[in-house]
Amino acid sequence: MLDINIKGTIPKNMEDRGLHILSDNLGEIENILNQRKMPKKGLSDEKIELLLTFLSNMDTDKDPKAIRVGEREARISSEIHKKLSSNFCHGIGRSGNLVDPQPKAPGASAMYALTNKLLESFLKNLNVNVNALATPVSTGMSIALCLSALKRGFLVENVNKNVNKNKDTKIATNITTNITKKQYSKYDGANVVIYPYASHKSPIKSTSFAGMRMRFVETQLSDRDDCVEIPVEDIISATEKELKAGNNPVILSTLTFFPPRRGDDIEEISKYCLENNIPHIINGAYAIQNHKYLDKLKKALKYRVDAIVSSTDKNLMTPIGGGIIYSKNKDFLREVSLTYPGRASATPIVNTFVSLLSLGMDKYTQLMKEQVITKNLLDDLLIDLANKTGNTKLNVDSPIASCITTQKDPVDVSAKLYNLRITGPRGIKTTDHFGNCYMQNYKYNYVVMNASIGVKESDVNNAVDRLSKVI
Amino acid sequence: MLDINIKGTIPKNMEDRGLHILSDNLGEIENILNQRKMPKKGLSDEKIELLLTFLSNMDTDKDPKAIRVGEREARISSEIHKKLSSNFCHGIGRSGNLVDPQPKAPGASAMYALTNKLLESFLKNLNVNVNALATPVSTGMSIALCLSALKRGFLVENVNKNVNKNKDTKIATNITTNITKKQYSKYDGANVVIYPYASHKSPIKSTSFAGMRMRFVETQLSDRDDCVEIPVEDIISATEKELKAGNNPVILSTLTFFPPRRGDDIEEISKYCLENNIPHIINGAYAIQNHKYLDKLKKALKYRVDAIVSSTDKNLMTPIGGGIIYSKNKDFLREVSLTYPGRASATPIVNTFVSLLSLGMDKYTQLMKEQVITKNLLDDLLIDLANKTGNTKLNVDSPIASCITTQKDPVDVSAKLYNLRITGPRGIKTTDHFGNCYMQNYKYNYVVMNASIGVKESDVNNAVDRLSKVI
Amino acid sequence: MLDINIKGTIPKNMEDRGLHILSDNLGEIENILNQRKMPKKGLSDEKIELLLTFLSNMDTDKDPKAIRVGEREARISSEIHKKLSSNFCHGIGRSGNLVDPQPKAPGASAMYALTNKLLESFLKNLNVNVNALATPVSTGMSIALCLSALKRGFLVENVNKNVNKNKDTKIATNITTNITKKQYSKYDGANVVIYPYASHKSPIKSTSFAGMRMRFVETQLSDRDDCVEIPVEDIISATEKELKAGNNPVILSTLTFFPPRRGDDIEEISKYCLENNIPHIINGAYAIQNHKYLDKLKKALKYRVDAIVSSTDKNLMTPIGGGIIYSKNKDFLREVSLTYPGRASATPIVNTFVSLLSLGMDKYTQLMKEQVITKNLLDDLLIDLANKTGNTKLNVDSPIASCITTQKDPVDVSAKLYNLRITGPRGIKTTDHFGNCYMQNYKYNYVVMNASIGVKESDVNNAVDRLSKVI
Amino acid sequence: MLDINIKGTIPKNMEDRGLHILSDNLGEIENILNQRKMPKKGLSDEKIELLLTFLSNMDTDKDPKAIRVGEREARISSEIHKKLSSNFCHGIGRSGNLVDPQPKAPGASAMYALTNKLLESFLKNLNVNVNALATPVSTGMSIALCLSALKRGFLVENVNKNVNKNKDTKIATNITTNITKKQYSKYDGANVVIYPYASHKSPIKSTSFAGMRMRFVETQLSDRDDCVEIPVEDIISATEKELKAGNNPVILSTLTFFPPRRGDDIEEISKYCLENNIPHIINGAYAIQNHKYLDKLKKALKYRVDAIVSSTDKNLMTPIGGGIIYSKNKDFLREVSLTYPGRASATPIVNTFVSLLSLGMDKYTQLMKEQVITKNLLDDLLIDLANKTGNTKLNVDSPIASCITTQKDPVDVSAKLYNLRITGPRGIKTTDHFGNCYMQNYKYNYVVMNASIGVKESDVNNAVDRLSKVI
Repeated sequence: MLDINIKGTIPKNMEDRGLHILSDNLGEIENILNQRKMPKKGLSDEKIELLLTFLSNMDTDKDPKAIRVGEREARISSEIHKKLSSNFCHGIGRSGNLVDPQPKAPGASAMYALTNKLLESFLKNLNVNVNALATPVSTGMSIALCLSALKRGFLVENVNKNVNKNKDTKIATNITTNITKKQYSKYDGANVVIYPYASHKSPIKSTSFAGMRMRFVETQLSDRDDCVEIPVEDIISATEKELKAGNNPVILSTLTFFPPRRGDDIEEISKYCLENNIPHIINGAYAIQNHKYLDKLKKALKYRVDAIVSSTDKNLMTPIGGGIIYSKNKDFLREVSLTYPGRASATPIVNTFVSLLSLGMDKYTQLMKEQVITKNLLDDLLIDLANKTGNTKLNVDSPIASCITTQKDPVDVSAKLYNLRITGPRGIKTTDHFGNCYMQNYKYNYVVMNASIGVKESDVNNAVDRLSKVI
Repeated sequence: MLDINIKGTIPKNMEDRGLHILSDNLGEIENILNQRKMPKKGLSDEKIELLLTFLSNMDTDKDPKAIRVGEREARISSEIHKKLSSNFCHGIGRSGNLVDPQPKAPGASAMYALTNKLLESFLKNLNVNVNALATPVSTGMSIALCLSALKRGFLVENVNKNVNKNKDTKIATNITTNITKKQYSKYDGANVVIYPYASHKSPIKSTSFAGMRMRFVETQLSDRDDCVEIPVEDIISATEKELKAGNNPVILSTLTFFPPRRGDDIEEISKYCLENNIPHIINGAYAIQNHKYLDKLKKALKYRVDAIVSSTDKNLMTPIGGGIIYSKNKDFLREVSLTYPGRASATPIVNTFVSLLSLGMDKYTQLMKEQVITKNLLDDLLIDLANKTGNTKLNVDSPIASCITTQKDPVDVSAKLYNLRITGPRGIKTTDHFGNCYMQNYKYNYVVMNASIGVKESDVNNAVDRLSKVI
Repeated sequence: MLDINIKGTIPKNMEDRGLHILSDNLGEIENILNQRKMPKKGLSDEKIELLLTFLSNMDTDKDPKAIRVGEREARISSEIHKKLSSNFCHGIGRSGNLVDPQPKAPGASAMYALTNKLLESFLKNLNVNVNALATPVSTGMSIALCLSALKRGFLVENVNKNVNKNKDTKIATNITTNITKKQYSKYDGANVVIYPYASHKSPIKSTSFAGMRMRFVETQLSDRDDCVEIPVEDIISATEKELKAGNNPVILSTLTFFPPRRGDDIEEISKYCLENNIPHIINGAYAIQNHKYLDKLKKALKYRVDAIVSSTDKNLMTPIGGGIIYSKNKDFLREVSLTYPGRASATPIVNTFVSLLSLGMDKYTQLMKEQVITKNLLDDLLIDLANKTGNTKLNVDSPIASCITTQKDPVDVSAKLYNLRITGPRGIKTTDHFGNCYMQNYKYNYVVMNASIGVKESDVNNAVDRLSKVI
Repeated sequence: MLDINIKGTIPKNMEDRGLHILSDNLGEIENILNQRKMPKKGLSDEKIELLLTFLSNMDTDKDPKAIRVGEREARISSEIHKKLSSNFCHGIGRSGNLVDPQPKAPGASAMYALTNKLLESFLKNLNVNVNALATPVSTGMSIALCLSALKRGFLVENVNKNVNKNKDTKIATNITTNITKKQYSKYDGANVVIYPYASHKSPIKSTSFAGMRMRFVETQLSDRDDCVEIPVEDIISATEKELKAGNNPVILSTLTFFPPRRGDDIEEISKYCLENNIPHIINGAYAIQNHKYLDKLKKALKYRVDAIVSSTDKNLMTPIGGGIIYSKNKDFLREVSLTYPGRASATPIVNTFVSLLSLGMDKYTQLMKEQVITKNLLDDLLIDLANKTGNTKLNVDSPIASCITTQKDPVDVSAKLYNLRITGPRGIKTTDHFGNCYMQNYKYNYVVMNASIGVKESDVNNAVDRLSKVI
């Protein structure tokens, strides 16, 4: 592919050495393409950018001989656009399907396919054997894609059943069927989302966006610890009610959330879903970064999980904008991909690609270890602080976040922390039902803090130190 | 804000001159912030990047004094991410509302607000007086946002009306209502999309995504020219049928499409919609680039148009990934913004921002003029070619694209063009009902070519030259 | 060298197309390496940067397997350094010789060799058949290199002849001779620079730097026109005086200078130098941009010209910092290269490389044509202005710059122009002997303006317009 | 200077926070400009680039209102040039003086002045209280600048004394004197360089370049240890011989060199130079990185040191191309600056600027400590290896490099190391008089390795490990 002819410009032995070094450097890139796995050792930014350059130089807008007379030819008005899109100006996807190769963009299409392969190898390295789909939208919109894929089928169905068979609609039906026949066969008809309640607007919006109804299942206080939780039997009971009413429910469970809300018992929910043929989507927004979450996912995946949705920014340290949908069910991921209307920005996919290559498995494993250590540090410091101040570190169940009670107004405490330049903590009052995910008053006023992947020990030390001054 | 102290490093008169030049350079940036209008003369890439640097340096992840203990702190794994996101690592939007200012990202929030202001001034310069919303998704998904906003309300409605009033749902209803009360008041309940048929998968997918049913209205051959078109009375008739059946229809009309499909008569449709209180969305994917389209939009906007959807890549020469939704109805745009679940990548918004600043109004006006000239050139060349080869340049109605008949297999012709490195042309057979947007056989085999904004005269010359060899 | 394996990620026909486009893109780079000529059509910045990336990835500091335990290993403290040096962190040259391949930097060495090849092809395209050496220093320092190369030999000579032959110096002599034997044979001994006077500090400093004495030859007023000039016979006479005094003179003539100083008659000087075995260096700082200068160079090159020195920033539109030394005498260029002590920054060489590739011959030819047209415009406008204001456009001999008289204080006029943001013009009083290059009073107060390569017609129009307000 | 008006785009409290963060970020830049000292904590690359952007936007080629009609207007042919020069396209310096402010480049001039200030504060932090001049050329050429500054004056002298007083030269003398009068007064007339011999070509070339004769002083074996050294009395004796012969000697001593060559006793030499009014230049190429060297410099600086020359790449981890000349004698630095003919590339100065800001004093101190630790590690490992293999770690005197004997051909050993990808080690035979800096056979065959600033412990471990396989 590339003949670097420097013959005669420098002595033969230097030429050989130079070409050898270049070849070793390009070799790191070739390895990625050949193995299609997340590398053990991360690549340098230069190498990643070089690989991206090779890929983007396959798109037709880079063809030096191209004559372009379409309505969409990836013309750009500024060089800045090249940086923002890693020169994948044609984006990703086709109007019919997100993962379909785009003939105008062989390079972007290959990059997207490669990203999904890397993602799968990444998850496999974490012992999660699934198929994976990188999405160009965040968690909320990715959940909407899953729900919509489960709901679909209404289109054809309704056209067939509910509309008068006059000329225009009959033919219309033919076209639609033509377009969608095979696609719309399997995952049809979910129309209500059973949602063990968590105070997060995105899933509610996702449900609304997909044109579905949501049925909440209320939380209750745990009798084991300080958690707020939803018993699986309540979830089952809500589902059964909908089934009885002739509806097609889907369960949207939550694995990762601010404590005291406990993550749902996804293993038991999955068992129920498998036995009762109920679709099941898991919101695992920041689940990949910690083995406690991963273990729960692995257990649930033995039963029925149509898709798990995670965030690339929360787990892979990308800028906000991308999602990961993964599942043992390859067909369902294809349905999700088919659900996306039109093309999309390549950037969130490139972000995922870059993070996987840049981190490498060694660094990611290291970061996971550090997260655990830093979370332990946070716990220790909060216990200390609680002891000193007559407060309590709550007994909640999260590998990422911790809660400490306060005798002051927690909202006030959190505002003071904000002014001390601490971002992240939330102060919640007993009476804040939304904040507590609980419909009655919670037992304590408290402040919650996170030690998520990438956090530094100094962050935790400094944050608790300042908290000690305002608590 | 910035004190550049170089006193004593160089002579006073040079210092004054230097600071004066710097001040003039920064002044171009200040002007944008003060005027919040698309500039007459485009800014250099350096200036735009400097403005973006100032804005991104307002986000909390840039705070040199910040201590970060949240679950989402815009940590990134590679410097490449900064380029890809213009350093807006916190993305845009909040979980509840796309345009809501994000407290962790004052800079990105201001940038987004500014982009919408610039967009409005841009459209105003083109005599389209509307409110505008830049979206972080392409045309297809932007249409889905509009449809979903029209459909919404089902959530609350259903919770209130259709669900048994046992404990868990009652409280759930309270929360939902809490979250959504004011939001969900006005644009409730559309449930079927009336679609004057165009053979484009994205709008169909958009409708499906939003969980709505689509009713096609069939095309017919024009008796005026070679166009394929839908009489407004057929659209009205289809709408009336749905109304009679107790449904809430919304009309999704199409202004810009490949000929021979004629753009819908959006003025008449808007009149009908106004009189009958029917929501109306216009797909104007590449409408902004040409005054013939703009004139139609302006006429329609006198009556009922809830939103027009255009593409940023097709009109503003960004990479694929962003959309523009605009309308006289500011409230509806707010509903659309409320529809988006979660945060989103800042990049598509930055792309729009960059294009508006980079082009400037003068350059855009110039490009529009060149588009008209190049389209005329395309027409002249195709007439010539038709005359020489016994073919016909079709009498269709498009300011962007032209059709020429061929006596060969048009699919074959188009494949040959592809191999000659011509991207864009489509060859359509009489029997290709999808390609023709027509349910019966079309009159001709033909090839369609585009002269859209940014096309070069040399592209058109070369494309027709090569076409002459394979037609 | 590079195997881009995307097999199976996209359909075979797309894969083929993608790889074909990539191959065509890389082909532009391969062509440069194979042909080693300035391309007809300039390369895009992306292509040039990709070529530079390949070359810099041959240097040993990029070797992913290297273990580095030397005292100079191209370690850098900031990523910014990579940009500033195009990642050639080892610079160019060896301590003994500028063009010697540096074993730690095969890529930089090849890049430098390639630059010199491109330069030679560039000059050949302009019908100047010479050997060329890109230098990492500007014109002044490049002249110093030439002079020092002509002067050298003193070292060995003195050690042999003038120093007492005691132990320490004898052995020292052996080493020196060892190091320098073959090098110091041919161009020894020039000790005085004959300088037909031009009021430019750099050549004077260059002479001083090289440890030589300078003998000025005075200018006089021409009787043909308004020029200030030096008759060749005066130059010869000054040279003869030095020869008679037992010295070894070298003539440093000036081709390009501000009018009214006329360029020296380099053809006649070269003839004299050839006949009398006198070394001859031509200062042609901005000679390459205009065919009148090039024609004079070509004529002179038939006789004795040891080296011509030109600036890369003035001729090739690089930032300041590089020079070009060219001559039919390859051996002398090698001596010049041997003169440079130590390694040097690669950046000025990369600048030259980039300009040659970026411009391409077509663009350069076009710029030369535009320079002529713009100079003619400047002349026409100044004649007009002179007529209107009772002034005179001086009859001077320069293809780049023009002079107009003023009845005001020319220094004042030029200061006013500076305040009107016009950079470049110089106002010279009759009594300013330095500015006039003339030891007595010049005939006129005047302002001089340049239309050098890259100048825009609008610059000239605006400059003369503003001049009309202050003259 | 900068009014960032985002009023009304986001809520007031967010606006305040955003502007506060921006202001804190810009504050880091303002601090540099206000304090003009090397910061304690290094700046991020983004901050440094922003500061450079502000400075380069003061140069006249950035003036958006400028009309440019000069012969040198910093026009550039490619955007790549901006990166390569940090947009200081006008370079640095004037034709008469390197540090003179350039009216076309207020920003570059201020940047250069600032760099020198930062350098001085850096050296002061290391307890070296001197004036400093960053040079745009490496050590070799910087030494040439120092020598030439010491030699100068010949020009005027000769013109006055040795040339016949006919018309042309008399006037010429006037001009020269005019140009140079004050400049050439003080440091005139050195004509021979006393060089305690070190086998380094650059200083020899530097001397030759400056048109001076070099007198070597021979090395001898130390009776204290395994070093090769020059007794101060031999240096004095060589100097006295030249003085007796009526010459004006300057001593060029060497502090940093490959062992077994010991650094010269610069304290004693400086004492002698002070007492006898002999100029003294110290080649301290990599002296700044280690306190043993710095202590010697501090002691010497109590007596006569006209200038110390160090490398920016060896001490400050820049790419090759810049030098540092420093001295208590501010006047002499000005002479050196006056010596440089013409303008120069800004890049080497920017490299120095960037390194100082990027490292910060804390990081530099840390690197110095690590260098000492790593050198100790190297020593320990070599002693071990020597013990195991029947070799000897030589007793030489260097804080950077170590020598181990070998019973094999050391050239062969070093070639094998090269093939094992180890860069840096040199293998020297007893009979290699150049390599040993000794005119007779040295006692051992040996290999020398460096642990210079920036080296990693892993480098040293791996290097010695591989050495163990080939020694």
